[in-house]
Amino acid sequence: MNILIAPDSFKESLEALDVCRAIQSGFSQVFANADYTLLPMADGGEGTSAVLSYVRGGRWKEVTVNDPLMRPITAKYLLLENETAVIEIAHACGLHLLTTEERSPLITSTYGVGELIADALDEGVKRIIIGLGGSATNDAGLGMLMALGITFCDHDGVPLVQGGSALAHLSQLDISKLHPKLQDTTFEVACDVTNPLCGSSGASAIFGPQKGASPEQVALLDKALSHFGEVSKQHGYQSCQEVAGAGAAGGLGFALMSFCGARLKSGFDTVAEAVSLPAHIANADLVITGEGRLDAQSAMGKVAGGISQLAKAGGKPVIAICGSVDGLTADQASHFDIVMPSIQKLDSLDKVLGSAYDNIETTAVNIAAAIKLGQSLEQDIMPLP
Amino acid sequence: MNILIAPDSFKESLEALDVCRAIQSGFSQVFANADYTLLPMADGGEGTSAVLSYVRGGRWKEVTVNDPLMRPITAKYLLLENETAVIEIAHACGLHLLTTEERSPLITSTYGVGELIADALDEGVKRIIIGLGGSATNDAGLGMLMALGITFCDHDGVPLVQGGSALAHLSQLDISKLHPKLQDTTFEVACDVTNPLCGSSGASAIFGPQKGASPEQVALLDKALSHFGEVSKQHGYQSCQEVAGAGAAGGLGFALMSFCGARLKSGFDTVAEAVSLPAHIANADLVITGEGRLDAQSAMGKVAGGISQLAKAGGKPVIAICGSVDGLTADQASHFDIVMPSIQKLDSLDKVLGSAYDNIETTAVNIAAAIKLGQSLEQDIMPLP
Repeated sequence: MNILIAPDSFKESLEALDVCRAIQSGFSQVFANADYTLLPMADGGEGTSAVLSYVRGGRWKEVTVNDPLMRPITAKYLLLENETAVIEIAHACGLHLLTTEERSPLITSTYGVGELIADALDEGVKRIIIGLGGSATNDAGLGMLMALGITFCDHDGVPLVQGGSALAHLSQLDISKLHPKLQDTTFEVACDVTNPLCGSSGASAIFGPQKGASPEQVALLDKALSHFGEVSKQHGYQSCQEVAGAGAAGGLGFALMSFCGARLKSGFDTVAEAVSLPAHIANADLVITGEGRLDAQSAMGKVAGGISQLAKAGGKPVIAICGSVDGLTADQASHFDIVMPSIQKLDSLDKVLGSAYDNIETTAVNIAAAIKLGQSLEQDIMPLP
Repeated sequence: MNILIAPDSFKESLEALDVCRAIQSGFSQVFANADYTLLPMADGGEGTSAVLSYVRGGRWKEVTVNDPLMRPITAKYLLLENETAVIEIAHACGLHLLTTEERSPLITSTYGVGELIADALDEGVKRIIIGLGGSATNDAGLGMLMALGITFCDHDGVPLVQGGSALAHLSQLDISKLHPKLQDTTFEVACDVTNPLCGSSGASAIFGPQKGASPEQVALLDKALSHFGEVSKQHGYQSCQEVAGAGAAGGLGFALMSFCGARLKSGFDTVAEAVSLPAHIANADLVITGEGRLDAQSAMGKVAGGISQLAKAGGKPVIAICGSVDGLTADQASHFDIVMPSIQKLDSLDKVLGSAYDNIETTAVNIAAAIKLGQSLEQDIMPLP
């Protein structure tokens, strides 16, 4: 009997691998002789490369790059064995790298992301998986493209400075020094944002404010990014302004699609493919997933929802062990054979988060015990058709 | 397949019968064709007669009696078909009948309890089940015995007034007017208190303060009750002062044992016998119980703990569905096949209590689904021996 344990991390309390271990520890107290496969999952956001590192091995590489304000920092990315790099952009241009006072979307840059990519290209990778999300920037990838060798100038031929606002002055771009390996590399971008580059649902309007932009700055940035889109088109680049996801990570999605030929897909699908989730599910007799919080609004949790879909399509029973479960509709709950929260008692949020491992383990023991009980009970309790 | 559903009430949120219904509603969404027996349980405290009324039928009888301060109130008790009455003393002498200012353990009386008993005797019952607990009194049953026809006098032959403090003056007692049917009636008293009548762990010392007694009043009452014990012995009554439970309900336990020949047993055992729990368990393939809160200190919950013991003795699987589960040891948890809390998410206590029915139902659905899943899974996941 093969049991696949493939949960997301429990945000603020437990890494996905620890969730795996808690579930295995609980289940194996009842089913000691089952075969367990631990497959920690991620949704393409924070922790994605750590999960791929556990599942796929590879090596971490640390590189000194520029942070969003062009200060040197050490960032790392993952090199997998099959000539693939995994880069989380937040490591180089994340909002967490700035204090609240330092947030300045007019000038913050994705330059460090470009440096990580360039380093990976120098390592000879053929494929780069990029996790978008958590950026402090609104530069539509200007900095990244500069680091990859493209020169951006105003109408006087003066190179642009860093930051989205500089794009208002863009007139010419020169790709003569573009990193030579860029064209031969496949970019897969994990992205769950569907916003276009500009307009009322664009990068500046929707994500600018949380990066520190005032209403005036949002308007200025939106105009600058739109101008960038026009100039790119004039130079023969693919017209991606309106494509879903162009507005992700302050417009970095746009630059990756237009200049790097990137394919955007959902974070879950990206991770699922990278860890060979479909094959693992095909090999499993029972699939157990998990989410810190499963609710009707979060589309059932990106990971739990995605796994239930794959498991159901393969005719495999699927269990979700969660931190909390909030207001699922009957239809949503029916995507799982079992949906069980793990809170044992009312307590402060801190204490409940701190008890996550024990609570998950206890819940797993009891679900396993119920399955075992079912194996011993006569089948003359007939389920509904 | 017979499924016995026998939970306690969830204190402050759901009557035992509603807990039964929530569990059945959840289970029958998975096992529509199972046979369900709903057996709401109680621990001998509040709600015991309501539970017996549901399970055994019978009729309620309302009687005007005296409250602890000798004011007329309407109290009710249950008449079962087999010449049995069920009386909860709190209906006649409960602490909830007084405001905080009215608490006065020197003079509060169990007279109303005696009136309920006398009424039941007049109805021709042969057996009276009494639920002790929740009393406002500390009179060692003086009032009750007066209502049953015994006259208590001081050394001048003047009848005593109501209340425990009057017992200090007791000299003579006259049973010539005792209710004629008392001697032919069996008294079964549900009591989980093991305190003796007097002393440092007696009724006055332990329970007096919560009924409003000052330290001086505790001393006075303890001495008065001790004197009552001595005088009773001199008059040939059974010496029950030191018997476990004599101190229950302000010494009412003493009076019931010494003057009525009552047998005290645990509240759970009393209810279990009255609802024929052992026979129901013998007939069940699966037993589901429940408690609002299961923790290591509360001896696993009186009802859930008692049911698990009976079920295990009969080799029947037993599931506990709880409000919350707090710190059970592995050994305690092993008394159940499955122990599942039902909290779905962190919320205010009020909201969690208000969601009890839905949470129990959801938990029942998911436990049933796990059992069903077990029935469909191959048995080659071998449990530990």
